[in-house]
Amino acid sequence: MFGSKSCFLGFDIGGTKIACGLLNEEYAVMDKLSCAFEPLGEGGIAQSMLELAKKLCSKAGIGMESIRAVGVCIPGSVDTERGIVIDAYNLSLHDSNFRETVEKRFHIKTALLNDADAAALAEARIGALSAVKNSMLVTIGTGIGVGIILGGNLFHGGRGLGVEAGHAVMDIHGDECTCGRFGCVETLCSASWLQSKAKAALGQDASIPMLVKLAKAGDPVCAAIWNEFAFNLGNALASYVNILDPEMIALGGGVSGVGEFLLSSIRDHVDKGSFFRPQTPVVIASLGNDAGLAGACIYADEQQRNCEQ
Amino acid sequence: MFGSKSCFLGFDIGGTKIACGLLNEEYAVMDKLSCAFEPLGEGGIAQSMLELAKKLCSKAGIGMESIRAVGVCIPGSVDTERGIVIDAYNLSLHDSNFRETVEKRFHIKTALLNDADAAALAEARIGALSAVKNSMLVTIGTGIGVGIILGGNLFHGGRGLGVEAGHAVMDIHGDECTCGRFGCVETLCSASWLQSKAKAALGQDASIPMLVKLAKAGDPVCAAIWNEFAFNLGNALASYVNILDPEMIALGGGVSGVGEFLLSSIRDHVDKGSFFRPQTPVVIASLGNDAGLAGACIYADEQQRNCEQ
Repeated sequence: MFGSKSCFLGFDIGGTKIACGLLNEEYAVMDKLSCAFEPLGEGGIAQSMLELAKKLCSKAGIGMESIRAVGVCIPGSVDTERGIVIDAYNLSLHDSNFRETVEKRFHIKTALLNDADAAALAEARIGALSAVKNSMLVTIGTGIGVGIILGGNLFHGGRGLGVEAGHAVMDIHGDECTCGRFGCVETLCSASWLQSKAKAALGQDASIPMLVKLAKAGDPVCAAIWNEFAFNLGNALASYVNILDPEMIALGGGVSGVGEFLLSSIRDHVDKGSFFRPQTPVVIASLGNDAGLAGACIYADEQQRNCEQ
Repeated sequence: MFGSKSCFLGFDIGGTKIACGLLNEEYAVMDKLSCAFEPLGEGGIAQSMLELAKKLCSKAGIGMESIRAVGVCIPGSVDTERGIVIDAYNLSLHDSNFRETVEKRFHIKTALLNDADAAALAEARIGALSAVKNSMLVTIGTGIGVGIILGGNLFHGGRGLGVEAGHAVMDIHGDECTCGRFGCVETLCSASWLQSKAKAALGQDASIPMLVKLAKAGDPVCAAIWNEFAFNLGNALASYVNILDPEMIALGGGVSGVGEFLLSSIRDHVDKGSFFRPQTPVVIASLGNDAGLAGACIYADEQQRNCEQ
């Protein structure tokens, strides 16, 4: 099915779950598996990854010798060049030499990067951002993840420590963020904000889809919550525009599933808040949940090609 | 005094004043003049520039044929590559082909850029930011200007429209900014904020130096104002850090004259607000009022050298 060393193994590690994908040379996910896991130190995580990979390869009839590279993305700040997890609170990894740990288990060249960065790279290479050279992916999930593409390349931060634009302050007198700071973009623009407002208005069983459905139907309470969210998010995106002037912004993560209604709700706020004309186009990301797997493998592949040159 | 075509003419155009400098090959200001002016359209501004330049050259005993290039910086958004002023409200220039207008008067290759960008480039080449490749200059004057250096080069924005990071939102429910948006960094971190608080506390004759002096001396009202300013500015800088992870930030503009007391006042706020460790060093810019003149000439020179290659 595949030529020699023409597949990639991608890992998207969450706080409670590892997803493992087998990707082809076009970075399309051919098959994937996921498992719940307890993050028991870097060795334990790497062991869970190896077991999952073996299961997946065996299911797909692929030997590990066919794997060209391993790409891993995690929710946390990563020094990608050195392969170090700086801080991943969900995984209890801090200043962890995680790439080396993974490489020692797999005996395959591995790339390690932040999950929003991986998703941004994938959208830039094979997704919604592929037509432009300077762009941003903003993922709206439990938190806000931001990946920045500049000149066609993933921007790793000026010191290589990454991008944490979800922790820019947009409400200096606002609520405490999970990071311990106050009024971060994440406190006003995340799925968690919407979820808690939905529960307060509709009861503990309320969900974001329920809130969106009622807002669309004209329910005044739900519409007010949704409009406040759109105002917050539109202003956050406009702030990013005013700093980076991207050619395009793609929205990913759970809330991006709302689609056109989300885009039409934020459009005016992005427009009013942006200094530059014409307005930066904002679109929905196209790769969904596979973006992290694809981006991690793309990064691993590009790093290896650079080394071979 | 100078070899053939070895000088530069730099212009720093403000809302009511043009400064013109004659710079040597090391971009040091050898002589300068300034004049008040009424911004009467691009032709009128260019004419005032030419008259000022002739006066300066004559004073210095330099013929215009010795000028290698002209560098112009303005307070406004500029498409530097195309030489277009997008919006400069103080100068009433909008979508103005200003570089061409200047070149036609001077018959000398001209570069046009935003004043904070020019100052950032100068600090990066010959000033406080010269030791690093990825940095920011934040000028604290009537407004907040921000210039970004990435990979050793001035960052012009992803679409080439510039950087307006002073208009990122940091107080979503805050006061109206001069730009018409609400709660911009500029509304909380500019000299204008300090000036208006000083006047409210100390009377109409109050100045920022007076406020700072009293704050240093322990006056509780002035100390509270100063500490709020430091909190605001520290958080704004931390937000920039969380987005761009610069190696260093330099502070310029009028308020940076406060010096070490400013740096020590903001240090903890930058530290608490920053996601990355170690803390990004924040320093005072070193070129003072000449930074814009120098940066405009540096940019003009570098552009010309690139063309000659």
